[in-house]
Amino acid sequence: MNAMGTTALLTDHYELTMVEAALRSGAADRRSVFEVFARRLPDGRRYGVVAGTGRLLDAIEAFRFDDATLAFLAENRVVGPQTLDFLADYRFRGDLYGYAEGEVWFPGSPIMVVEGTFAEAVLLETLILSVLNHDCAVAAAASRMTSAAAGRPCIEMGSRRTHEDAAVAAARAAYIAGFASTSNLRAGQAYGIPTQGTSAHSFTLLHDDERAAFTAQIAALGKDTTLLVDTYDVAEAVRTAVELAGPELGAVRLDSGDLLLLAHRVRRQLDDLGAAKTRIVVTSDLDEYAIAALRAAPVDAYGVGTQLVTGSGHPTASMVYKLVARAGSDAADAPLVPVAKKSPGKPSHGGRKTALRAYDADGVAEAEVLRTGATGPVGPELRELLVPLIRKGEVVGREPLAAARERHERARAELPLSATQLSRGEAVLPTVYE
Amino acid sequence: MNAMGTTALLTDHYELTMVEAALRSGAADRRSVFEVFARRLPDGRRYGVVAGTGRLLDAIEAFRFDDATLAFLAENRVVGPQTLDFLADYRFRGDLYGYAEGEVWFPGSPIMVVEGTFAEAVLLETLILSVLNHDCAVAAAASRMTSAAAGRPCIEMGSRRTHEDAAVAAARAAYIAGFASTSNLRAGQAYGIPTQGTSAHSFTLLHDDERAAFTAQIAALGKDTTLLVDTYDVAEAVRTAVELAGPELGAVRLDSGDLLLLAHRVRRQLDDLGAAKTRIVVTSDLDEYAIAALRAAPVDAYGVGTQLVTGSGHPTASMVYKLVARAGSDAADAPLVPVAKKSPGKPSHGGRKTALRAYDADGVAEAEVLRTGATGPVGPELRELLVPLIRKGEVVGREPLAAARERHERARAELPLSATQLSRGEAVLPTVYE
Repeated sequence: MNAMGTTALLTDHYELTMVEAALRSGAADRRSVFEVFARRLPDGRRYGVVAGTGRLLDAIEAFRFDDATLAFLAENRVVGPQTLDFLADYRFRGDLYGYAEGEVWFPGSPIMVVEGTFAEAVLLETLILSVLNHDCAVAAAASRMTSAAAGRPCIEMGSRRTHEDAAVAAARAAYIAGFASTSNLRAGQAYGIPTQGTSAHSFTLLHDDERAAFTAQIAALGKDTTLLVDTYDVAEAVRTAVELAGPELGAVRLDSGDLLLLAHRVRRQLDDLGAAKTRIVVTSDLDEYAIAALRAAPVDAYGVGTQLVTGSGHPTASMVYKLVARAGSDAADAPLVPVAKKSPGKPSHGGRKTALRAYDADGVAEAEVLRTGATGPVGPELRELLVPLIRKGEVVGREPLAAARERHERARAELPLSATQLSRGEAVLPTVYE
Repeated sequence: MNAMGTTALLTDHYELTMVEAALRSGAADRRSVFEVFARRLPDGRRYGVVAGTGRLLDAIEAFRFDDATLAFLAENRVVGPQTLDFLADYRFRGDLYGYAEGEVWFPGSPIMVVEGTFAEAVLLETLILSVLNHDCAVAAAASRMTSAAAGRPCIEMGSRRTHEDAAVAAARAAYIAGFASTSNLRAGQAYGIPTQGTSAHSFTLLHDDERAAFTAQIAALGKDTTLLVDTYDVAEAVRTAVELAGPELGAVRLDSGDLLLLAHRVRRQLDDLGAAKTRIVVTSDLDEYAIAALRAAPVDAYGVGTQLVTGSGHPTASMVYKLVARAGSDAADAPLVPVAKKSPGKPSHGGRKTALRAYDADGVAEAEVLRTGATGPVGPELRELLVPLIRKGEVVGREPLAAARERHERARAELPLSATQLSRGEAVLPTVYE
């Protein structure tokens, strides 16, 4: 996937100095449990989406302190010799559990649980949060968009609106949440996501006139291509397009103006010209609301950019990484004790949790049940949500991207219908602590 | 910098298919001029900040189609054999001009100008926009924050809230706009930005009590360390901290609660305990408004995370990449003609522009002057903004990061005073087309 080498420095300075201090105090080896969760959903949203897990497993495997990394830390005196020795030997040897990728989440859902010594688990905090906060934010926006599109394909086109590497991850998260394809070629190469493209206004402007541009595009890419028809006059462009490609013209793209009105007008024109099978693709700052508003319009596909890659107003998912339990003493077999801070306004629930989704008799999800300590009964109306991802340092949770995509579709379909309404509201499932 | 290999696939599918079609039509070699600009500032903002230029020069040098890349494009039939041959030989051989990094910008400012053949210039569109849209957005937010902090240091701590690689670029952009340091270790390694850290609640919770945690941290990191004092009770934590470290205690960090009230209370307590030189660092979802609101509080440094890396409400800078001129025909020496599309609501100004900043007699900036075509006079009250970055494919515009940081401070100081007020308003300079 990512062509980078070690991921060890994609990390906050304090993770390493905490390890240094814990090695000094002797507490570094205490068995610890960290949970990743969000205290709340973005304002008005009904559910969250888990994404990034697959990327994260690769990034954790690459989290190793090589010589160049250690030299940087030594030269800059980030940590001392004892810690450098610890880091040189470091790889995560603990256990990682998580909500499977594509699953939905609610406030407090422990979407990831990290078990290991304090030192080995705290080191992964920044990397885990970076990956999950970004990918979950994009997937949540994408899921609302594919809901709003009600079966019409959505095309991810946001690369130019976000950091060049974030763009690749965004395409992946969007695909999990139901997008059909992406414009990003690296996402195609790295993850096998179908790529597609149309053409830009610059291509039309390059040629002496629109007819020359369309002729060139059809000659190179075939009649099934998508022609951009709003550089000058839409009606004239559509006429020229059908004249040149005939009824086999693949699609036309509208990127400006009143898309609702234009889509109706262009559909009528295409039909009148005998191009009844030519599709209409719309782009131009679409978000889930604009997509929903176009439901009644004769639109065949939505190209979505800015609002997708920026999480449609919520570019990060508010996930935090909290110590919820640790060994009661430095003894090797000390039992775990729950811990929680008391900072005002930031409530935490101590203790390692089991996460279950409860269903009613019709199979509709009705609650997120988080049990602390001993596990209670699990019946047909309860589904366990945490699956093993890493066992004793070995990745066991890898799966094809298609599995996450299918899982998301299933998990969303199990939610009460109000989940996929765009109106603002509370989390569609209550979180129940048992 | 970024450890990745080629950047060529951090690109939209359609850039390559446009090249394919232009090679077919013969227009691929037409000399072309693309400009990067934003039609508007984010709502209410007074100025933008140019950032990303240095990263982009590296990324453009790495924009080469190696064998693995070509094999992917061939297998997936993104383009055909003629285009693959063109790409195999591709490197950018044209000229690149830009506003120097750290400079401020306004609506329409051509912060980058790309000159080359259509094919070589269009290929860079996605990469250029990804880098500039992300980095400019973060730098703009950072500049407002350092303005609001009025000389007190700001520490970049947002890595966990954004994509793991975007985090490194965000730290760099923040540093250009006046941040003092970052928590991100890769940013330290790649760009020489000072890194720093405090400690987390988990470190306190790991130990049997707060006293044990503080003792461990002081033993490992020295008395000059920053202790986190809001895990349980702030007043008790401050008392313990000074008892253990004495008046040499470096700093305490507050991460929750009413920071204005707490800062006053903790300052008084520290002074009463004889720790008059111990600093107070505040964190907890700060943005430029919260920083400004704490101006009257005895705060020594601000740690800023989420709002910085997400552009404080505007995570992308709306930069577009538009063809503004191209050769009038396929003849090798054909003169350039200005071009512009007519899409409603998206006005473009055709023609290659010269960009100048005009000053009044006191040296205060008063207008952004964009001249099309022939260059007019340049006097002492006018400053040329475009500098050469790449000449005939060779990077000529590399500079130390400190130069961009100093430039930003100068450029911001030249603006009318209202530029750095946080109240919503229009662009602080008008853009004048001549």
